[in-house]
Amino acid sequence: MISMPDRDTDLCISLSGRPSNIGTRFHNFLYRELGLNYLYKAFTTTDLPAAVAGIRALGIRGCGVSMPYKEDVIPLVDRIDQSAAVIDAVNTIVNDDGVLSAYNTDYVAVRSLLEPVDTGSRVLVRGSGGMAKAVVAALRDEGFTDVTVAARNAGTGLALADRYGFTWRPSGEGETADMLINVTPVGMSGGAEEHELAFTEQQIRDAQTVFDVVAMPVRTPLIDSAIAAERTVITGAQVVALQAAEQFALYTGVRPSHGLIARASEFSRA
Amino acid sequence: MISMPDRDTDLCISLSGRPSNIGTRFHNFLYRELGLNYLYKAFTTTDLPAAVAGIRALGIRGCGVSMPYKEDVIPLVDRIDQSAAVIDAVNTIVNDDGVLSAYNTDYVAVRSLLEPVDTGSRVLVRGSGGMAKAVVAALRDEGFTDVTVAARNAGTGLALADRYGFTWRPSGEGETADMLINVTPVGMSGGAEEHELAFTEQQIRDAQTVFDVVAMPVRTPLIDSAIAAERTVITGAQVVALQAAEQFALYTGVRPSHGLIARASEFSRA
Repeated sequence: MISMPDRDTDLCISLSGRPSNIGTRFHNFLYRELGLNYLYKAFTTTDLPAAVAGIRALGIRGCGVSMPYKEDVIPLVDRIDQSAAVIDAVNTIVNDDGVLSAYNTDYVAVRSLLEPVDTGSRVLVRGSGGMAKAVVAALRDEGFTDVTVAARNAGTGLALADRYGFTWRPSGEGETADMLINVTPVGMSGGAEEHELAFTEQQIRDAQTVFDVVAMPVRTPLIDSAIAAERTVITGAQVVALQAAEQFALYTGVRPSHGLIARASEFSRA
Repeated sequence: MISMPDRDTDLCISLSGRPSNIGTRFHNFLYRELGLNYLYKAFTTTDLPAAVAGIRALGIRGCGVSMPYKEDVIPLVDRIDQSAAVIDAVNTIVNDDGVLSAYNTDYVAVRSLLEPVDTGSRVLVRGSGGMAKAVVAALRDEGFTDVTVAARNAGTGLALADRYGFTWRPSGEGETADMLINVTPVGMSGGAEEHELAFTEQQIRDAQTVFDVVAMPVRTPLIDSAIAAERTVITGAQVVALQAAEQFALYTGVRPSHGLIARASEFSRA
């Protein structure tokens, strides 16, 4: 953001049920640091079709999409990128002269974090919500074949595993795997299971890589245990930063450095 | 504007066929000076109904409306204030929790500038465009009864005079009046008649008050001559500043001081 907006300033926004300050601070910090004539502002709406029509009609450059709109926006845009199509969920809209393209940068970020991991690994995923879909689709599309989805909810768990050609188990207890991935709220700050471990100490010791999608706190009990056991870790904070950088690049055409992204992430949570 | 927008920042916008920087700079200057958590940004659109629906759906707090949308927005809002109803033209939309109210602060500003003038004055208005409607309606509503509308265009001139109960003449030449009001582009910077006088030197000498709606330059040939003749003047720049202050108060609930408005006007044109 240059010191004061003018008629040429590009506006990017977000739509979510309960807007936070994180995206607004993250993007505006980067605009300022990079001297880009952009502005970012979080919104909510009770009329999603009109909000999306407004994005198109006002020439708002981009829109981050959060719960509960990620699926409902699909029929409202003009083009669905493969990243959003594979999981039927959108988290980013880009407006090119009135043509709205929908992306899912969570999926893109997860794929990119999975890239260094050996695709021969046995993978145990815990959870079956929206983010689990991004993770399981990313695993398949990166070439992983030995994946078990552990989820108490038989409906969503079985459907998720089936859709991407993997195995479902109601519980991951006693399973061993080379990579453990937590996509449940276990360990999330303020949650009911804030201080619990998403996998057992034994499972952590048996694994090579531990991936926790929970981003708050950065060091969940699971990540703490995995670090103590000297395992390779992938954190939810990495997913959040990477997906936001991806989104930023889609909006502005500028890809910030890792260092700058880290500073923006820190600023956004301050 | 506080240093960086957050989720609570109120966004105000403008819609016009050719956005200028003036409104954006005027409003943002005042937000910064007054420490208000607001942002202002000019937009254009090719889809007015969707743009207005977007204002409502996104909770955009206010919208300045310029040419060519001033009449077309009328069926798109929920409530028409008397200021917009009397001239069938809107220049300001205020969004109160999804209820859009339309105002015309040009009309409000003109009325307020006419207030000190004796309503017994004979008035000669030159012009019959959109702004002439605001001026003629304001004259009637302030209680002026002896008003002549001089306009070469018989269609618009006669209709305008008739609508508000005044007299039309195809030309104002040779007419004398206590107050002369120019609502044509004569004297406007960059226009074909930039260096011409909207009324004769004789008419100026015969008048007590000279009102030029042309705002650029602040000192039009007409205003210059009226000042030289020691007549009371009302300038287009006063109309612009006052209508913008009115708009600002509608959006924020804060009425800036005259001094601050003057500084914001100067900043907006720099």
